[in-house]
Amino acid sequence: MKAAATKKISSMRLARLRRDVLEANLELVRRGLVLYTFGNASGIDRDEGLVVIKPSGVPYDELKPEHMVVTDLSGAIVEGNLRPSSDLPTHLALYRNFPGVGGVAHTHSEFATAWAQAGRPIPCLGTTHADYFHGSVPVTDELTAQEISGDYEKNTGTAICRAFLKLDPDAIPAVLVRGHAPFCWGPDVAAAAHNAVVLEAVARMAYYTLNLSQNAPPLPRALHDKHFLRKHGKNAYYGQSSKK
Amino acid sequence: MKAAATKKISSMRLARLRRDVLEANLELVRRGLVLYTFGNASGIDRDEGLVVIKPSGVPYDELKPEHMVVTDLSGAIVEGNLRPSSDLPTHLALYRNFPGVGGVAHTHSEFATAWAQAGRPIPCLGTTHADYFHGSVPVTDELTAQEISGDYEKNTGTAICRAFLKLDPDAIPAVLVRGHAPFCWGPDVAAAAHNAVVLEAVARMAYYTLNLSQNAPPLPRALHDKHFLRKHGKNAYYGQSSKK
Amino acid sequence: MKAAATKKISSMRLARLRRDVLEANLELVRRGLVLYTFGNASGIDRDEGLVVIKPSGVPYDELKPEHMVVTDLSGAIVEGNLRPSSDLPTHLALYRNFPGVGGVAHTHSEFATAWAQAGRPIPCLGTTHADYFHGSVPVTDELTAQEISGDYEKNTGTAICRAFLKLDPDAIPAVLVRGHAPFCWGPDVAAAAHNAVVLEAVARMAYYTLNLSQNAPPLPRALHDKHFLRKHGKNAYYGQSSKK
Amino acid sequence: MKAAATKKISSMRLARLRRDVLEANLELVRRGLVLYTFGNASGIDRDEGLVVIKPSGVPYDELKPEHMVVTDLSGAIVEGNLRPSSDLPTHLALYRNFPGVGGVAHTHSEFATAWAQAGRPIPCLGTTHADYFHGSVPVTDELTAQEISGDYEKNTGTAICRAFLKLDPDAIPAVLVRGHAPFCWGPDVAAAAHNAVVLEAVARMAYYTLNLSQNAPPLPRALHDKHFLRKHGKNAYYGQSSKK
Repeated sequence: MKAAATKKISSMRLARLRRDVLEANLELVRRGLVLYTFGNASGIDRDEGLVVIKPSGVPYDELKPEHMVVTDLSGAIVEGNLRPSSDLPTHLALYRNFPGVGGVAHTHSEFATAWAQAGRPIPCLGTTHADYFHGSVPVTDELTAQEISGDYEKNTGTAICRAFLKLDPDAIPAVLVRGHAPFCWGPDVAAAAHNAVVLEAVARMAYYTLNLSQNAPPLPRALHDKHFLRKHGKNAYYGQSSKK
Repeated sequence: MKAAATKKISSMRLARLRRDVLEANLELVRRGLVLYTFGNASGIDRDEGLVVIKPSGVPYDELKPEHMVVTDLSGAIVEGNLRPSSDLPTHLALYRNFPGVGGVAHTHSEFATAWAQAGRPIPCLGTTHADYFHGSVPVTDELTAQEISGDYEKNTGTAICRAFLKLDPDAIPAVLVRGHAPFCWGPDVAAAAHNAVVLEAVARMAYYTLNLSQNAPPLPRALHDKHFLRKHGKNAYYGQSSKK
Repeated sequence: MKAAATKKISSMRLARLRRDVLEANLELVRRGLVLYTFGNASGIDRDEGLVVIKPSGVPYDELKPEHMVVTDLSGAIVEGNLRPSSDLPTHLALYRNFPGVGGVAHTHSEFATAWAQAGRPIPCLGTTHADYFHGSVPVTDELTAQEISGDYEKNTGTAICRAFLKLDPDAIPAVLVRGHAPFCWGPDVAAAAHNAVVLEAVARMAYYTLNLSQNAPPLPRALHDKHFLRKHGKNAYYGQSSKK
Repeated sequence: MKAAATKKISSMRLARLRRDVLEANLELVRRGLVLYTFGNASGIDRDEGLVVIKPSGVPYDELKPEHMVVTDLSGAIVEGNLRPSSDLPTHLALYRNFPGVGGVAHTHSEFATAWAQAGRPIPCLGTTHADYFHGSVPVTDELTAQEISGDYEKNTGTAICRAFLKLDPDAIPAVLVRGHAPFCWGPDVAAAAHNAVVLEAVARMAYYTLNLSQNAPPLPRALHDKHFLRKHGKNAYYGQSSKK
């Protein structure tokens, strides 16, 4: 009976995750980050080791929770009749390597993608950036021809992890895959989508800023820290949830 | 009786094509590619040699399937009381010369048009481009004064064909007519409109990218091929339709 | 009785003009050319010598045909309880000097205004421009301090007329008032608003084009003429109305 | 009884202010100036010395008048269960130092923020700017490390006041906080929000203008004065309210 109860809770949690993953995917569309089917968001149930992700290439207005695909951390399909997003192996690499990550969002949002195509990290030029990303948003190295012809999507994940060898993925929850587009993440799939939306705004404003002043200086470190820490960590005082 | 049945099937197919052509024209409007009546999309029934195209200068919110104009490949009107889009001869040139083309879409979408006005091919700077266009999107040569004063719209089609003498129109389903605007195509009219929408996004991102980095390198060939081929051809693994 | 009948017709025509002027003002809002109340459109009844214009500073969602202000060509109010748009004297100068003009539209649409602020005429870089404006869109000279402190809005009209001393206002139905914003016109108020919308698109595309290629050449004259004349004049063959 | 009547009037006025503050916050969202919860607007009741401000980090679609937080000019909460916007001390500094200010609006609107990030004042390049801001929109100096680590939001307010030592806040109702974003104000909270919307449009057009002409000259002083004074002060003749 105990096992049955556990199983029921787990199944309810998975149903909830399906809905959250669908909702995060729709949020990306509503915010104008996704053209046609150029994006995907996933969430993980760490206790079960199960990942829920959008199916590949299905129009968003037809998507329902039951279309979400459930896989394990190796990518084996556990539930679902549809093929998962082709970027699944990249998501899985992030879940395996970044233990704080509960959700991943990938889009081709236009300004973040332009920075990725230009191969330039997004510098922190203002407090909007500092509120969310505690440092520049890095760019991955180019994949080798072998990495491209091999397990390409998985190797994209490996390249992201390499870019974070000396960075904290919980403090900078986004990366630009060179020549491709951004991947964002967060403690859950809603936060991952939220970070993707903010990243696009930050990318847009950084673009405008450098057009106004090619040598705009990065935000002073003290101010960068101030803004990041008033929203994150134990001394945060923004919003209602952390009210003391 | 056999002839009558054939005729009936053919007539049903044509009715379907009218609806698809109307729908593709409306998709161009919904996606913000068409201001007032600055655009047109057509589809072809290869078996009948009949082309269905939007009438010229009619407001989109009044358009109905029965307003679509049906012509043969020489441009002679077979059905319809309205004058066809003035760009019809350009569409016909594409149908006559590119056997894989089932639909054509022409817009003055603003970023693709800016590239056409600048006379610059759109280089492949990222995977979004590579997913759809297997190479730079080319620009036509200038028409001669004689070509302009002669059968201008037909000669525009000829210029497009010249730009593809060494290119595969099925792998690069778009062109920039110099000083004018883009023409896109695809296996059917829905694909042509879809490609027009993606071309505009690609044109926009390429514009932003070059503003961020004037010498942004083209996507490495291996990555370009990888992305094009994961969506197209016999080894494609994106989306659901080609699931094995 | 004859006089009464004439009066009735004239009054019906004026009621129609009120509705058309209101509708043109609303079209400017719908197309995103007007922020708050930064714009105005007017129409003229040439037979009566009466001008109908939007009142000054009234929110658009409260505007009704009866709020439109009717004046004569000297600006004296003939009907209406509200103050007319403060730019009325500029509109009147255009009606008095350009006999082909039946409607005027003024906006601060952002890209056309940027060209006006930069003091640069908009060159014809493509066929979209050529379809509507048979030459560059000119910029007025600076007003003198005396013209500014005097009858400013009327003198703005005079400056526009000076800019057209050697240009045909029927072939180039728009101007950029230096440091201010565009004025557009046409055979009626709907055409004036339509031209304002197209001018903004043309201004935007010219901006993008020059960012892509600082020395983008103007459209060759033959092509410019071809496009203008396929939409305008006795040999036009675009749209349905001129179908032969 | 007299005291009771006074108290009732004051309470009705406060209820009205709550609604106005909520409405101004929603206007910022409707106009696209606010992403998620990145903005806040407040209003003051000068007679009571009470400030009404949006709570921190609450989604806009859940906001009701009763969620607004009421504080005194020292920031002590007088009414409300929610934490006020974290930028409250900046608003208070403006109310304490600028006696003509009845409302304050803060956003991260993208173009104004880009100017703030670039550390460049917005020059007056056209009449749209002159209609609202009687001079360049200034940028604050950098805060010192001590000001950042101390009472940061209050010190931001102090930096704004420093930027206006030789400027009239009633004639230039906006400032760019360096590396952060704009603050705007006005005689009441609706005017503050309205000025924030116009500032963003002005920032956008100034950006486009300088991209078209790096050395675009500021608007001549006489024209700047003309436009500001036709909308403001005793000789204003724009709109209906000041009709003589």
